[in-house]
Amino acid sequence: MDEFEIIRRFFDRETTDESIIAGIGDDGAVTRPMAGRDLVTVIDSMVAGVHFPLSMHPADVGYRAVAVNLSDIAAMAAIPKWMTLALTLDQADPAWIEDFAKGLFAAADEHGVSLIGGDTTHGSEKVVTIQITGIVEVGAALMRSGASAGESIFVTGSVGDAAAGLSILQSGAPSNADTDYLVRRFTRPTARVSVGRKIGALAGAAIDLSDGLFTDTEKLLSASSLSGIIETDLVPLSAELQRTMARDDALRFALGGGDDYELCFTSAASEDEINESIAECGVAVTRIGSVGEGRGLSCTMNGERYAYRDDGYRHFR
Amino acid sequence: MDEFEIIRRFFDRETTDESIIAGIGDDGAVTRPMAGRDLVTVIDSMVAGVHFPLSMHPADVGYRAVAVNLSDIAAMAAIPKWMTLALTLDQADPAWIEDFAKGLFAAADEHGVSLIGGDTTHGSEKVVTIQITGIVEVGAALMRSGASAGESIFVTGSVGDAAAGLSILQSGAPSNADTDYLVRRFTRPTARVSVGRKIGALAGAAIDLSDGLFTDTEKLLSASSLSGIIETDLVPLSAELQRTMARDDALRFALGGGDDYELCFTSAASEDEINESIAECGVAVTRIGSVGEGRGLSCTMNGERYAYRDDGYRHFR
Repeated sequence: MDEFEIIRRFFDRETTDESIIAGIGDDGAVTRPMAGRDLVTVIDSMVAGVHFPLSMHPADVGYRAVAVNLSDIAAMAAIPKWMTLALTLDQADPAWIEDFAKGLFAAADEHGVSLIGGDTTHGSEKVVTIQITGIVEVGAALMRSGASAGESIFVTGSVGDAAAGLSILQSGAPSNADTDYLVRRFTRPTARVSVGRKIGALAGAAIDLSDGLFTDTEKLLSASSLSGIIETDLVPLSAELQRTMARDDALRFALGGGDDYELCFTSAASEDEINESIAECGVAVTRIGSVGEGRGLSCTMNGERYAYRDDGYRHFR
Repeated sequence: MDEFEIIRRFFDRETTDESIIAGIGDDGAVTRPMAGRDLVTVIDSMVAGVHFPLSMHPADVGYRAVAVNLSDIAAMAAIPKWMTLALTLDQADPAWIEDFAKGLFAAADEHGVSLIGGDTTHGSEKVVTIQITGIVEVGAALMRSGASAGESIFVTGSVGDAAAGLSILQSGAPSNADTDYLVRRFTRPTARVSVGRKIGALAGAAIDLSDGLFTDTEKLLSASSLSGIIETDLVPLSAELQRTMARDDALRFALGGGDDYELCFTSAASEDEINESIAECGVAVTRIGSVGEGRGLSCTMNGERYAYRDDGYRHFR
């Protein structure tokens, strides 16, 4: 099975999206943007053994590769539209590729995203690169730099689950309903695209949580040239996480773990107002702190300063 | 040096392009397309040791990774605009990355392309994935499928040089001015962007030559559901290639070698008319054959049928 056969068999699907003039099969894909829209472009790679365990199910690899990019689109308050795939494979294993494609299209279909092009190459390890282009009303992209002093800091869903899930996946610990949930939070992250759209008008700044709540909040504040406080007592921890480990460990995963792909954003609105506006999104937001003048991010616990050391993952560190 | 430092130091540059609302540094890049334009999206990966020798100079790796994508944009008659980079590195060697970035920006600057985003990851081998979005007047993208029976087949520049250059590079043969030229045709391919723009209105169909003249012409004809003949006596061979090897070997490289990144297109116009219209592009086109009814591609030599076996490179074959 050569590269052209792989594309034909697993990746070339019909589309009904009228914005796609020409998809897979030419030198490039042709798409027609709507008038009055800006484009949002994201790209993210996952390397086998680095970003996901070699044993991870190929359908999960495909799903996750798309979801982490959708999450970036969500953090810009944009609508994801067109996707390209650069897939480096160590072998042309049809069963692996078929399952990978199923997971990839499962994530794409949830958000009406079409695969319009790609490149399949041979290498010594698997590298999955997804690029997505989204659209957003002109000038309405939600940036990291738009926070204001006095706003609150919010996070969607719960944090720490995915990092705990990865740790469980790697340890091979016996599974139960709670650990299965946590593992799935790593393998099948939920991109908060609909939340991103709804909060666009309410939020000052937003970032998606890939490297860890502390590190990513710090990035948002740094881009906005402001300071912030995370009240660790407010950080939302899932029941599954709390049943699986002690609160201290859960909080460490929540602040430093990464891979949550929840949205962190700032807003002058209240938690209730925001939750009302996203009622149909199937997830709630929690106020976890506030934005202030100056620079730097600190944490509190029970009203006292809590010394937390940044442990966000960085390549090559 | 961690991934953020790599991006800041080597890849985050100022841009004066007003279509870029936000480049590197947020969850996604924001760009503003012109009204009345379609988007052309291309993506292409190069794996070290597969698509280029491990010993290739990092500036050449960077240049080539961009040029091969520009070539796809050229084959669609589009103007390249915005580029993203997914870079997997086996080590964070600042000297390598600095030279790589120089080559990458050299190719980008030649065509006014801006790097708007990317992702840097750690893996066991180098994988360079470039994605470029271009713009083209609505409905004017030049497809592979638009050929008509009776049109001639044309190719820009000369073919076979790059494949010969790669072979020379890999053999470590002693160099002279001719072999240096051929090697450079592999390491620094010239994307025919300005030719693509000029022939847009004259050409029926176009493809860029990455897998070999025969294979790629076959793809164009197959997409157009037509047949074709390549008159091998007309295939343009450079003086450097002809001085370096026997004509039979040169022709084999020309038909099957790949990596030329010249444009192959069909047109009802004459060679003279086309060359007049691209006079300012610094390269000439040569008529090499014709399009007919039916299916399949054959070759002739001295007016007789010439049996050529497809040898285009395919991954996983």
